[in-house]
Amino acid sequence: MTRFRPQTSMRRLAQAGTAALAILAGAGAGQAQDGRKKIDDLIARMTLEEKVGQLNLLSGHHATTGPYARSDVRAAVLKGQAGALFNVYGAEYTRSLQEMAVTQTRLGIPLLLGFDVLHGYGSIFPVPLAQAATWDLEAIEQAERISAREAASAGVNWIYAPMVDVTRDPRWGRVVEGAGESTWLGARIAAARVKGLQGDKLSNPESVAACVKHFAGNGATEAGRDYTASDLSERAMRETQLPPFKASVDAGARCFMSAFNAVDGVPGVANDRLLKDLLRDEWGFRGIVVSDFGAIRELTVHGVAETPEEAGRMAFRAGTDMDMESRTYVEALPGMVRDGLVLQGELDNAVRRVLQLKMDLGLFDDPYGRSDASREKQTVGRADHLQAARVMAEKSLVLLKNANETLPFSTSLKRVAVIGPLGDAPADTLGPWAANGKPDEAVTLLAGVRTVLGSEAEVSFATGGTVDRSSPADIAAALKVAKAADAVILALGERATQSGEAASRSVIDLPGDQLALARAVIALGRPTATVLFNGRPLTIEDLDREAPAILEAWYPGSEGGLAVARALFGLAEPQGRLPITFPRSVGQIPIYHDARPTGRPAVEQGRPYTASYLDQSPDPLYPFGYGLTYTSFAYGPPRLDNPALGPSGSATVSVDVMNTGKRSGTAQVQLYIRYKVARVSRPIRELKGFGRITLPPGGVGVVKMPLTERDLAFWQPDGRFAPPDSAVVEVLAGPDAATLKSTLLTYRPRGQAAASGRGGG
Amino acid sequence: MTRFRPQTSMRRLAQAGTAALAILAGAGAGQAQDGRKKIDDLIARMTLEEKVGQLNLLSGHHATTGPYARSDVRAAVLKGQAGALFNVYGAEYTRSLQEMAVTQTRLGIPLLLGFDVLHGYGSIFPVPLAQAATWDLEAIEQAERISAREAASAGVNWIYAPMVDVTRDPRWGRVVEGAGESTWLGARIAAARVKGLQGDKLSNPESVAACVKHFAGNGATEAGRDYTASDLSERAMRETQLPPFKASVDAGARCFMSAFNAVDGVPGVANDRLLKDLLRDEWGFRGIVVSDFGAIRELTVHGVAETPEEAGRMAFRAGTDMDMESRTYVEALPGMVRDGLVLQGELDNAVRRVLQLKMDLGLFDDPYGRSDASREKQTVGRADHLQAARVMAEKSLVLLKNANETLPFSTSLKRVAVIGPLGDAPADTLGPWAANGKPDEAVTLLAGVRTVLGSEAEVSFATGGTVDRSSPADIAAALKVAKAADAVILALGERATQSGEAASRSVIDLPGDQLALARAVIALGRPTATVLFNGRPLTIEDLDREAPAILEAWYPGSEGGLAVARALFGLAEPQGRLPITFPRSVGQIPIYHDARPTGRPAVEQGRPYTASYLDQSPDPLYPFGYGLTYTSFAYGPPRLDNPALGPSGSATVSVDVMNTGKRSGTAQVQLYIRYKVARVSRPIRELKGFGRITLPPGGVGVVKMPLTERDLAFWQPDGRFAPPDSAVVEVLAGPDAATLKSTLLTYRPRGQAAASGRGGG
Repeated sequence: MTRFRPQTSMRRLAQAGTAALAILAGAGAGQAQDGRKKIDDLIARMTLEEKVGQLNLLSGHHATTGPYARSDVRAAVLKGQAGALFNVYGAEYTRSLQEMAVTQTRLGIPLLLGFDVLHGYGSIFPVPLAQAATWDLEAIEQAERISAREAASAGVNWIYAPMVDVTRDPRWGRVVEGAGESTWLGARIAAARVKGLQGDKLSNPESVAACVKHFAGNGATEAGRDYTASDLSERAMRETQLPPFKASVDAGARCFMSAFNAVDGVPGVANDRLLKDLLRDEWGFRGIVVSDFGAIRELTVHGVAETPEEAGRMAFRAGTDMDMESRTYVEALPGMVRDGLVLQGELDNAVRRVLQLKMDLGLFDDPYGRSDASREKQTVGRADHLQAARVMAEKSLVLLKNANETLPFSTSLKRVAVIGPLGDAPADTLGPWAANGKPDEAVTLLAGVRTVLGSEAEVSFATGGTVDRSSPADIAAALKVAKAADAVILALGERATQSGEAASRSVIDLPGDQLALARAVIALGRPTATVLFNGRPLTIEDLDREAPAILEAWYPGSEGGLAVARALFGLAEPQGRLPITFPRSVGQIPIYHDARPTGRPAVEQGRPYTASYLDQSPDPLYPFGYGLTYTSFAYGPPRLDNPALGPSGSATVSVDVMNTGKRSGTAQVQLYIRYKVARVSRPIRELKGFGRITLPPGGVGVVKMPLTERDLAFWQPDGRFAPPDSAVVEVLAGPDAATLKSTLLTYRPRGQAAASGRGGG
Repeated sequence: MTRFRPQTSMRRLAQAGTAALAILAGAGAGQAQDGRKKIDDLIARMTLEEKVGQLNLLSGHHATTGPYARSDVRAAVLKGQAGALFNVYGAEYTRSLQEMAVTQTRLGIPLLLGFDVLHGYGSIFPVPLAQAATWDLEAIEQAERISAREAASAGVNWIYAPMVDVTRDPRWGRVVEGAGESTWLGARIAAARVKGLQGDKLSNPESVAACVKHFAGNGATEAGRDYTASDLSERAMRETQLPPFKASVDAGARCFMSAFNAVDGVPGVANDRLLKDLLRDEWGFRGIVVSDFGAIRELTVHGVAETPEEAGRMAFRAGTDMDMESRTYVEALPGMVRDGLVLQGELDNAVRRVLQLKMDLGLFDDPYGRSDASREKQTVGRADHLQAARVMAEKSLVLLKNANETLPFSTSLKRVAVIGPLGDAPADTLGPWAANGKPDEAVTLLAGVRTVLGSEAEVSFATGGTVDRSSPADIAAALKVAKAADAVILALGERATQSGEAASRSVIDLPGDQLALARAVIALGRPTATVLFNGRPLTIEDLDREAPAILEAWYPGSEGGLAVARALFGLAEPQGRLPITFPRSVGQIPIYHDARPTGRPAVEQGRPYTASYLDQSPDPLYPFGYGLTYTSFAYGPPRLDNPALGPSGSATVSVDVMNTGKRSGTAQVQLYIRYKVARVSRPIRELKGFGRITLPPGGVGVVKMPLTERDLAFWQPDGRFAPPDSAVVEVLAGPDAATLKSTLLTYRPRGQAAASGRGGG
């Protein structure tokens, strides 16, 4: 109890992220005061049950006609016992639900209507991991803006995204939902997504409230299995897992969803250290905290609560404002308030946060603003939205191999074969959790190739079996089709259902007999490009050895097949870089670019007593940041305009780039740092920046990247996130984490003498 | 500096473990006082360089004639610049070294002489992991007593064992050196080893000082690679990794070796939180702390020290008394003391600890007591030592599969084939790091089978290739031999060099083509037993499916082949139980019995949204504690004499066991607990006891196991290792971690009301 503090105090306002303040400021100070008064008045009129109802979040269901709220759910709304629904969408239907809440309940409070919109609502963008491969923060923000606009036109005002867990275990199915392994990149993508979803003004009917998930530590779920506990040191939490969440708060995120998993033995919904001490008190978060699906009731399964009632009380007192589908709050909270186990003031504060969000969303002023059937019709799947999805898909493609300039293929080819179970698979083109995306409107790779080549070319197709199995007859049929072609496109990978929630794999090879299919096709000797559709790093060392060209397409979304085809035939440039390391085998996991050092690095082949495996390289198959282009580049060493950073200082890192190939192309330069010496051992490299430049053949240019004092901060042994007292920092730059040149930067914040005075005591 | 406190104060004595006190008490209070005076007098006479020399530990080298100290090492000893050597042994040679130190140096201080004796000195016992499989604490203590006796007869007075890291990643090569995954079992084995090595009286010439390693967190080295950093929460450290170290201190261990790896960014030698705050201040450890090989200098590679000099200062000030082969102390400490960077008093305290150990070992009274060539000759490889090694090997064998009672084979078989690369491999019979064990004296499986069957049987042999490769000709030759036999013994597994330090594997299948060899042999349809030699869990799901009988032999030591043969032919009973889980595939790692729970356990087949893999069972191939017998047993549910444990209370758990098979046999019952509800989620089961009973066919008996308040303790959220305020605990018992029956125990230490009052706030 003593830890609970009202969240509307001026201290809290002062601590809040700047963007959150901007939202309030947008409403004007006077308006904000009016709003608070209105909320206070409402709370004063609410019954205990109505208050608890505002904290109760119930799910819709799905019928062939679309989503709907079951009669018991509607009854709960009517009785003021459910202030929010999710999994319901569509302008007309959501309007009817809002009307019910506004006109048929005692207090007429509109509904929060939530939905998982992870990579588009109707116009489906590439999956989030693919979006991260673009390293294009503006494009990502724009994609979320479009997702918000489409979802909001269908009555949704609250989206359970972004997922900002930092992921280092490709077995985990939810790797597909995140931004990969880099905390630095993940934090920037998190902020971009929050801004895109929420827009400049939350009350804009094209904006929705973002709900950042899964707080926290879910990215480290054990053995890559979903829902399992994470064991993380304070340092790993502070330095690796938490920064994207902090960035989301700073970007003004209005909602956090707690994680299913336990950290230090305490599941997310009950984790008061995370929800109160860190999120509210340390970070100044003012929004709402919602549980994941049924997570409160599952406290009994975790073994930290004896009954659902106790679970409800624990979650509420830990700082969980809303109960998603556990119904423990409606069942237990009223009695607990009556019995004094939960204070009325605590309840009012949670209700106030929910009502404030509804107000900020404009729902009190115009509950139907987002449920406009004509706008929905004009908005969902708008041509410019689909085009943005296609362009982003092109930017997300990562060229993993391109021996002998196999790609791009010529558009004048007359006979092209598309081979593989994912060559014409619409649902797998969209990817997992495609919201309201319609598979039958998705452009598959086969369709995309036909579009690109036009009617003069013959584009044939054979599945070669399924993702799970290729019979000898399947392969024979595929070979027959391939033999008749001048060039072959292999479309391999995972089904969309093999990624996402509860979709962990213990083996991350190409499933089924697809490698055998690929080998048989490649052996024909035709120019062959392998396109991979998948939601996680795959262990494809054999394929890499044998395939002349490999293009990582992820799950590319509505226009994905067209995007891939345009890239294969040189109409677009694959610009993606891997946001996550591809291991050679499962036995290398975890493997990621910013590993901690050892005293005996695995650097020299054959040297005994090093940190290597007897049977495997210490290096991954494809490093973090990796991605080829259709041309080639030479990269100079990083240069510093300011080799001695002072207090609040900033340096510019410049890298000369030359296009040494025959085509125009876009080079990407990545910036990493490594401390030469620090009081705690620092990662062998950490991403701290990147830049791009497009150059014609023979063209030269400079990529400039800033490096500030803030980039030098880490979790200090005394429990502060700060730069060290002084340091010599290696500044590394190059096209990927394994191909870097370096220079030295000295950091002396207070005009100190050289670092030799640093002590070990 | 302020954290450094003299370790000889009465406060420290009062805090010391009881066994450590017993050692002092054994010397008599007056003697101890005399000793301290003698040490003070010595220190008063020592030069700065001589003091630092006592902290300098140098390695011997190995020639064909045996170990020797290089001339520069001998010169260092003569100058008083090396107070300790390791990797030198043999009574005559060590006597010459001690004579040099005692008679040719200014102060005549005898040497500490260390050696890695991990599973026997000359009489080689099964590897430590195999010893753990015996679950026989007395046998383990006795094995260490024998190891100490043999090593001590060869002049060794200090042994770098036990390795007490808790291991959950079978990729890591050093899994072979530990006691497996159970913290509870590991703590008891750690104490037994310390007692066995040190004996009742350290000055006994048959005793040596134990040096417990690797402090701390090495068991969690990332990705199973050696030397890499460990990321561990405080809870994982306190509950999983540290208890065996604490048990070692309580058992009187006189030396700790710090870990190569970093924890929270700080490598072991520089980790003052571990070495000072925890080990000395919290646990009251009074012995010496030594670095691992070169570990201090490697601080520069870790990136926490700029120069070797700084590394030396960091390590010394963090609490590392002795520098193994970094030479940073001799190079840097004298100057640092002169410059005031290290206090004279700090140095004296470290020297005092080293001299105290030498005194307690009796080295000042009789420096040659352990270097007695005639005793060495009578002791090393003594018949009773080898017999103890054989008996322990028999107890360590784990029967993994025995379809249709394939085993035991009849001793009247006339034609038996031994097939496989490990059937007659002496060095692999001994296992990795076999100290002074002689491969040419090891009894291989082939030799053991010939001994058991005598001259009347024909025992044929074919390697079937090497561990790494079997050519078609190799397999054909093996099949020819197998076809001519009435029964076949397959001897498969890993070379000894595939386990141990820097011997990590990313794939833990049977290496080479051994599975193909096994399949071909098994397909002949002869009664076939597969014997596995290996130092870690292997992923042998295919073998398990196809082989009728599998016996896990680990690396069984000097008499290992005889032990295995006796078990195969029913002259001995395989009594081992797995001390570590065997996964089905590398992709399941980490997998261990006491995992933390989840809110969505993978319990129901086909149920969506659970913590399972899409492509793999959540269950291991063989669970922790697993092991069959040549008979069968029925186990009743656990019964409690006292279902409500009070303060300082204890309960007895009784389990009825019946031998339901046709042979006499030994049943093992394991005791686990699980909290129904706790403030932090508790493991799904934790080992807390075990018992054994030998029963004739049809015989019944009761196994009784104690459960005390102490067994209920865990790391509380407020930072204490203590039982909860109250709890309902599920008490589970059965033959392995996956086959358990349960009852409930209520714990109410202070006569409290029912647990329903527990809060979540």
